Amino acid sequence: MSLRIEHTLAVVPGFRFSGATCGLKKDGRLDLALAVADDVASAGAVFTTNLVRAAPVEIAAARIAKGRAKAILVNSGCANACTGEAGAVAARVTTAAVAKALGAREEEVLPASTGVIGVVLDEAKVTGQVPALVGSLSENADTFSQAILTTDRGAKVVHARGEIGGRSFMVLGVAKGAGMFHPSMAPLAPHATMLAFLFTDAAADGRSLTDALARVAEGTFNRATVDGDTSTNDMLAVLASGRAGTDRAGGVAPALEEAMILVCDELAKKMVADGEGAEHLIELHVSGLASDDDALRVARTVATSPLVKTAFYGQDPNWGRLLGAAGRAGVRFDPTRAKIVVGGVVIVERGVGKGAAAEAEAHEVMTRASYRVDLVLGEGSGRARYLTSDLGIGYVRCNADYRS
Amino acid sequence: MSLRIEHTLAVVPGFRFSGATCGLKKDGRLDLALAVADDVASAGAVFTTNLVRAAPVEIAAARIAKGRAKAILVNSGCANACTGEAGAVAARVTTAAVAKALGAREEEVLPASTGVIGVVLDEAKVTGQVPALVGSLSENADTFSQAILTTDRGAKVVHARGEIGGRSFMVLGVAKGAGMFHPSMAPLAPHATMLAFLFTDAAADGRSLTDALARVAEGTFNRATVDGDTSTNDMLAVLASGRAGTDRAGGVAPALEEAMILVCDELAKKMVADGEGAEHLIELHVSGLASDDDALRVARTVATSPLVKTAFYGQDPNWGRLLGAAGRAGVRFDPTRAKIVVGGVVIVERGVGKGAAAEAEAHEVMTRASYRVDLVLGEGSGRARYLTSDLGIGYVRCNADYRS
Repeated sequence: MSLRIEHTLAVVPGFRFSGATCGLKKDGRLDLALAVADDVASAGAVFTTNLVRAAPVEIAAARIAKGRAKAILVNSGCANACTGEAGAVAARVTTAAVAKALGAREEEVLPASTGVIGVVLDEAKVTGQVPALVGSLSENADTFSQAILTTDRGAKVVHARGEIGGRSFMVLGVAKGAGMFHPSMAPLAPHATMLAFLFTDAAADGRSLTDALARVAEGTFNRATVDGDTSTNDMLAVLASGRAGTDRAGGVAPALEEAMILVCDELAKKMVADGEGAEHLIELHVSGLASDDDALRVARTVATSPLVKTAFYGQDPNWGRLLGAAGRAGVRFDPTRAKIVVGGVVIVERGVGKGAAAEAEAHEVMTRASYRVDLVLGEGSGRARYLTSDLGIGYVRCNADYRS
Repeated sequence: MSLRIEHTLAVVPGFRFSGATCGLKKDGRLDLALAVADDVASAGAVFTTNLVRAAPVEIAAARIAKGRAKAILVNSGCANACTGEAGAVAARVTTAAVAKALGAREEEVLPASTGVIGVVLDEAKVTGQVPALVGSLSENADTFSQAILTTDRGAKVVHARGEIGGRSFMVLGVAKGAGMFHPSMAPLAPHATMLAFLFTDAAADGRSLTDALARVAEGTFNRATVDGDTSTNDMLAVLASGRAGTDRAGGVAPALEEAMILVCDELAKKMVADGEGAEHLIELHVSGLASDDDALRVARTVATSPLVKTAFYGQDPNWGRLLGAAGRAGVRFDPTRAKIVVGGVVIVERGVGKGAAAEAEAHEVMTRASYRVDLVLGEGSGRARYLTSDLGIGYVRCNADYRS
């Protein structure tokens, strides 16, 4: 049986979820979320590599080292970052309240926060809702998926089903994304405000899960960008209940890692498509360079170029900007051999434009919600893919008055 | 006598200028400019480091190697970049026409172009205006300074006067800037669409002028950004007539280099202040790090962060974004010792916000057309300065329909 992916929620044996409103968001939307493993689960996580780490990131990173977790407590509306000792205390007090209500140990509850930086988490607002959160736990992750959102236009959920040694398993992914999005996550090197949580009924030990997540993140979230900014709160975690009865020897099974990649890739696409103010999701493929590293450098430079991203917004096949951005990436290639393809339409060949008709056709492609752009920069085997969005007036509006 | 700087045009002994309309710009504005040295001048130049180099850059870089120039022919409205052999021919034909009209050698005329990429320079439009250009040469650089502009809101001219060995000299700077602006220029490594031309009556040889320009650019234009994009056409050139009678032994005199720095620094500020859609010029100072290189990395990361730049646009002292951007620069510092000052107002001390009153005061500072931001990230001696602008709706509007 091969992997199947669905863009919906699904019940994952061994986990329950809830969401509540505690008043951290000014508009009364859901802002507190809890995920609980029936039994303490194997757990792995990777965090933002930003030097500036929010209190919940520091605490979650320390706690995940044991490779086990009972619950994840997430709040939106407050990042609890740059909040000094008071922020650390708030993260500890709130997770302790959850642990007590669940009869679990404090170190088994992982905190995660997203929202504005520089404001200490209001612990009373959170702890006041803990009984309601614990009392309303159910197999349905719908309110959980809503409560972790900030500037997102909607919930981001995906699940995949696969098979390991004849036993079927599943991976559910729930994420929030939007602005300040250019993840760069590594194990035990806390930094990230994309939050993504995976729940699986497959079995694996915590250390192997963290190792696998680092590889998964490298090929998915770490190659996606909205604005090039890496948050202080980014976190990608996985909890494994083992209820599927799959073999737990030998770490993370290839089928499980593949399912995690599929789920994270779809979540990354949803995040970029829902980048603040974004109207287009662009899958950028760079190839023909000497090495994959070279291709990645070019892809990252093009994907984060404001001139390229405003051209995407304007639905303008402005290939001079694509080539210009590629040219400043610090990678050697021969611009006179460059080929550029937008959604199958060749607009540049041998470094020169193919003319107005080709550009008009490419413009039509660029009106779509998502499309692919290929930069073929030589005959080398180095290639890389990057997900990016357009940069439009919506992004500016969203970020120019975020705190007002 | 110390250096004096003036934000106006001035007559530079040994040079004449003109401007014309040749139809490269659709709206009938001036789009062709000529600067001529009475006698062949010593000349130096640095060019964009972008791998994708416009035809005029390739040609000017080859010609400047001789260290001498008679004239500079600049057109706006067409970058003549990514135009293959046809673009190179157009650059050669148009500069040959100027050389012929001046009775000079073709290699003594430097071409420079700015405008849209991917369109071959229409040589007939240019050559048709060469007689008018040559016929209208005068000591006044006003039309020259207008004709090189693209999306600029106005001409950028500065001059400085100094003294070398008891003889007074001057440096006139004329520039255009605006979008696609994040220069990275090096001698003989052509790339750049900021154009800046310096004219001085001091004496120096061409090789020394290029060496000096590389140092001057490093501390000025290369530490200024509008959108992080480096153009295919950037060029900074200096012509020295020697008419001031200063000593030409020993290369570029310290006073001359200092005058060039002053002029370029003011031109860089004008370019950033006039960045596409920009409403604010921010002088960012990063200090307290282990080395100047570390400080420069942090400064560059903060100065190009879309989240930081949209906060500047929103006049929002959102220090979490400043600290977050600093934290992802890949430089070690202790965030809990960070201090942030906006126009003299301390908004962060020891990594924690100073509260609403300080932020309200900082917001007032941020309503100004220009202000200073200090990030003090430790006790080290490493420091760097970077000029940046806000990123607003005007930038998006300007770049989303540049070619329409």
